[in-house]
Amino acid sequence: MERTAYCGQITSKYKDETVKVAGWVQKRRDLGGMIFVDLRDREGLVQVVFNTDQNKEALETAEKIRSEFIIAVEGKVVLREDGQINTNLNTGEIEILAEKVDILSEAKTPAFEIADAAEVSDDLRLKYRYLDLRRPKMQDNMKLRHQVKKVFRDFLDDEGFLDIETPYLTKSTPEGARDYLVPSRVNQGKFFALPQSPQLFKQLLMSSGYDRYYQIVRCFRDEDLRGDRQPEFTQVDIETSFMKKEDIQSMIEKLLVLLVKEVKGITLKAPFKRLTYREAMERFGSDKPDLRFDMELVDLNEIAKNSTFKVFSSAVKNGGMVKGLTVKGAAKKFSRKNIDALETIAKIYGAKGLAWMKMTEEGLTGSIAKFFNDEEISRALIEKMDADAGDLLLFVADNKSVVYDALGALRLHLGKELNLIDESELKFAWIVEWPLLEYDEEEERYNAAHHPFTKPVEADIEKLAAEPENVMADAYDIVLNGYEIGGGSIRIHKRELQEEMLSALGFSKEEAYNQFGFLLDAMDYGFPPHGGIAFGLDRLVMILAGENNIREVIAFPKNGKAVDPLTDAPSFVSSEQLAELGLRLKIDEEQTGGE
Amino acid sequence: MERTAYCGQITSKYKDETVKVAGWVQKRRDLGGMIFVDLRDREGLVQVVFNTDQNKEALETAEKIRSEFIIAVEGKVVLREDGQINTNLNTGEIEILAEKVDILSEAKTPAFEIADAAEVSDDLRLKYRYLDLRRPKMQDNMKLRHQVKKVFRDFLDDEGFLDIETPYLTKSTPEGARDYLVPSRVNQGKFFALPQSPQLFKQLLMSSGYDRYYQIVRCFRDEDLRGDRQPEFTQVDIETSFMKKEDIQSMIEKLLVLLVKEVKGITLKAPFKRLTYREAMERFGSDKPDLRFDMELVDLNEIAKNSTFKVFSSAVKNGGMVKGLTVKGAAKKFSRKNIDALETIAKIYGAKGLAWMKMTEEGLTGSIAKFFNDEEISRALIEKMDADAGDLLLFVADNKSVVYDALGALRLHLGKELNLIDESELKFAWIVEWPLLEYDEEEERYNAAHHPFTKPVEADIEKLAAEPENVMADAYDIVLNGYEIGGGSIRIHKRELQEEMLSALGFSKEEAYNQFGFLLDAMDYGFPPHGGIAFGLDRLVMILAGENNIREVIAFPKNGKAVDPLTDAPSFVSSEQLAELGLRLKIDEEQTGGE
Repeated sequence: MERTAYCGQITSKYKDETVKVAGWVQKRRDLGGMIFVDLRDREGLVQVVFNTDQNKEALETAEKIRSEFIIAVEGKVVLREDGQINTNLNTGEIEILAEKVDILSEAKTPAFEIADAAEVSDDLRLKYRYLDLRRPKMQDNMKLRHQVKKVFRDFLDDEGFLDIETPYLTKSTPEGARDYLVPSRVNQGKFFALPQSPQLFKQLLMSSGYDRYYQIVRCFRDEDLRGDRQPEFTQVDIETSFMKKEDIQSMIEKLLVLLVKEVKGITLKAPFKRLTYREAMERFGSDKPDLRFDMELVDLNEIAKNSTFKVFSSAVKNGGMVKGLTVKGAAKKFSRKNIDALETIAKIYGAKGLAWMKMTEEGLTGSIAKFFNDEEISRALIEKMDADAGDLLLFVADNKSVVYDALGALRLHLGKELNLIDESELKFAWIVEWPLLEYDEEEERYNAAHHPFTKPVEADIEKLAAEPENVMADAYDIVLNGYEIGGGSIRIHKRELQEEMLSALGFSKEEAYNQFGFLLDAMDYGFPPHGGIAFGLDRLVMILAGENNIREVIAFPKNGKAVDPLTDAPSFVSSEQLAELGLRLKIDEEQTGGE
Repeated sequence: MERTAYCGQITSKYKDETVKVAGWVQKRRDLGGMIFVDLRDREGLVQVVFNTDQNKEALETAEKIRSEFIIAVEGKVVLREDGQINTNLNTGEIEILAEKVDILSEAKTPAFEIADAAEVSDDLRLKYRYLDLRRPKMQDNMKLRHQVKKVFRDFLDDEGFLDIETPYLTKSTPEGARDYLVPSRVNQGKFFALPQSPQLFKQLLMSSGYDRYYQIVRCFRDEDLRGDRQPEFTQVDIETSFMKKEDIQSMIEKLLVLLVKEVKGITLKAPFKRLTYREAMERFGSDKPDLRFDMELVDLNEIAKNSTFKVFSSAVKNGGMVKGLTVKGAAKKFSRKNIDALETIAKIYGAKGLAWMKMTEEGLTGSIAKFFNDEEISRALIEKMDADAGDLLLFVADNKSVVYDALGALRLHLGKELNLIDESELKFAWIVEWPLLEYDEEEERYNAAHHPFTKPVEADIEKLAAEPENVMADAYDIVLNGYEIGGGSIRIHKRELQEEMLSALGFSKEEAYNQFGFLLDAMDYGFPPHGGIAFGLDRLVMILAGENNIREVIAFPKNGKAVDPLTDAPSFVSSEQLAELGLRLKIDEEQTGGE
């Protein structure tokens, strides 16, 4: 029996036609002598009616049908009676009068109901992922992901980008996150690494003259997992030669405007807002600010430095800072207990405490209000904080990074808690002018803020050796609704500068050559100025799908312990497999006393 | 200086326009006071002229230019003088009179010339892959690969297929080829495996109702390498539900007809030829016959079984066979020495010898002709072999598989040597009706001829337990010019049959469940009839590009020892990295006396 249409697409257009459909039984209602089946496929549901008028045999077969059975049905499409129309359903005006039915597959009662509303634990969902993936929301997410990739590809194809594949079995580079390693059998004792990104290969492709490259490519990082991290993730990787940063940015804006139009029907305007890294930190306490709401951080150093409130004045004196948040109209909503909860959040980010006041018709109140009795100081503070009666004022005084992190986190928390965020909005922005290097206190050396191939801005190149902390990178990240969705930069294309950069990162000349010799050598043979960007596809699709975890937009993700409960990967392998690779497990050695 | 056009695209259309181009210096000729530069980018070459009339400063800069320097040039496009037109070049009618020039990157003399004709060793090409990839032929191959993928994707998108990504970190399944393993750090002692194909995941997606899936996906096999094998290769993976084999085949034909039209401009007719596996073996000695030329194998069992030539008669008596090849008009070309060379090939494939005769006006000649003196036998043989005067006749008598392999290889060898192959032709064919299982003499058990998830043809299912060797598979491979480019089948979708299949392969019930429990369990919850196909993209592009090795169509391949001479992967890793994974190298243990 050959299918003629998807269940979910049979509308009144098909009236009086005989159709053949196949799908999964969502629901079956037996009214005695008449059976209704909601039949589901990837396009939606359709109602199938079995009754003796049509076909007695089909009705008998229908009696055996249970949820998640797969059946093929042939029957005539008829309009439902007036009272029976279901306006929630694409197919709600019609039903199929079944003339023939085949049971293609039987089904046990599934471990959970196939419905968006079903509340199921994460691990159960992953163990039965093939059931979970039947839920309409998951199907929508997979379709959205497909569509997003298609928009990217079509746009880039049209712009002359070539989709070129780079290796998955490549060289381990300890720089950056931890690599996943792959032991070599033919070259025992040696290892491939799975790529954290195709960065160096795409740069080499530029040196080979491909001019415009892209790839939707899997990347791997063996890091401890967080909510939006997975051991493997998908990157839309883009690189071009001879293009200026501004041109790359405006091309990407064109792409994202198109994407949002195609998949969400929303018309955005380019150019997107551009914030420097410094501005983003100062105003929002974050290098990936959520710009769907205001509540900006307020700089209070001037007022704080002469304050009688020692916490404030000493913070400034010790080179730190004091910043505040004005939570409009929230004074009444936040009891002492509620404010304690906010302080708990601030403390997660290293703050020693959270100072607060409330603005009333009579002026400032709260435990630290007494330090702001002076009318002039009080007025200055109120003005600076733009405080009206009924506002809650929050303050953190500490070193720079604690102040940013704590208030940035509080801002996000309050934005959500107070419903300040329009969830339907998409707010893109570029974050530009990044520091090139970050000082790692623990390791007592500099790390690349982006990666070691990012170009310093032209004017700062001469500072690289002497004052590396003051060198800015020619980098541009793109953020959306509080997430970094893409990171880009102009790359170094000259050997001398690349060597200087590696030296600033603490590589000896020999180490640099051992790790990146092939790149350095390539720079001797004609290497064009180039740059690019890479998008985190999982995160981007997650945001567009309105989900909070990238697992919801990945067909077969790992759980929080980097395990796939479905296939039970990773798993033990045979001793023969290990022997072929020339490997022994430490744990085995210990058990056998290290034979 | 912003580029306004690609070098290779500046034709006489641009006459009198000022253009800005950027590219690599292919060649520089200094005529004293006048310098000609052939400038190259991915679209081709353009001639740039520097002379004092235009700009003295630019000329001075041009004096410093060497091969593979990257320069940006601004200048006016003028028509070349009549005698100077180069009809081999897209841009051969024009030249650019340089007004400005910037040297963007200098270059040492490369290890080899950037030209298709340059003869360079494979390892040198791979070590300097970024230079090798500059060669026009490599650039064409990469563009062709891009275009092939685009045709696949656009077609499948239009047909309602969803591009869904499956995991790269998955479970090791010893069935089939050897896995690449990835040690887990979080779950020490356990390993992921890189997928040999996304087979089970795509089947699960069918059980989840995605209906039509595709993915252009990397696959991994840790096998000993051959000419057209790589540790990692790319597959176009396709799966559908509720479709019959015939419908899948005709959809794929539509796709391939479109592909060949788009990328080669060749119009093919569908349906393609369909050969059963048996017919392919009997007529061409190969399950992936090159159909661009005839020279079919001739069955001589009837004549051989009563022959006085013992080699022939005993082969038939012992259950083997005798087959011949008629090499038209080749008798004179093949001296005794040449025929010895053919015998050497036959012996590689296990033949004990190669019998031969030549047909002359006077009848059969050659060392074994005396056994065919009898007029009736002689006539029968000549008739069967369709032999005319001047033909060379070759014979192999042995067991079935040796006869097929040896004559199949000779057929191919002779087809090439005698120029019987029209290299511009593309001959697709389906090979159908495959045996489900192959007996492994060494392991004394059956292996799946395709994979353990291939469905037996309906009529043979009942034979699976009792006479597995006689069960045919519902499989269809597609071959092109002597290569298998795709393998497909209808899959098993019922648990009972899947269990029976695994049992026929020698799995105990427990082993079957340990390995494939998640698939078996999924079959309990509604699993639609489904099937699909997977194309070897590297091989397909290789054939379309007219190349003989897949390395020519992969940007960064491994060499014959599974090593990448460019990055020097695989490489040693630090003891810290191994310690984190709970691994020790056997070689280290041996050196330290197994501490």
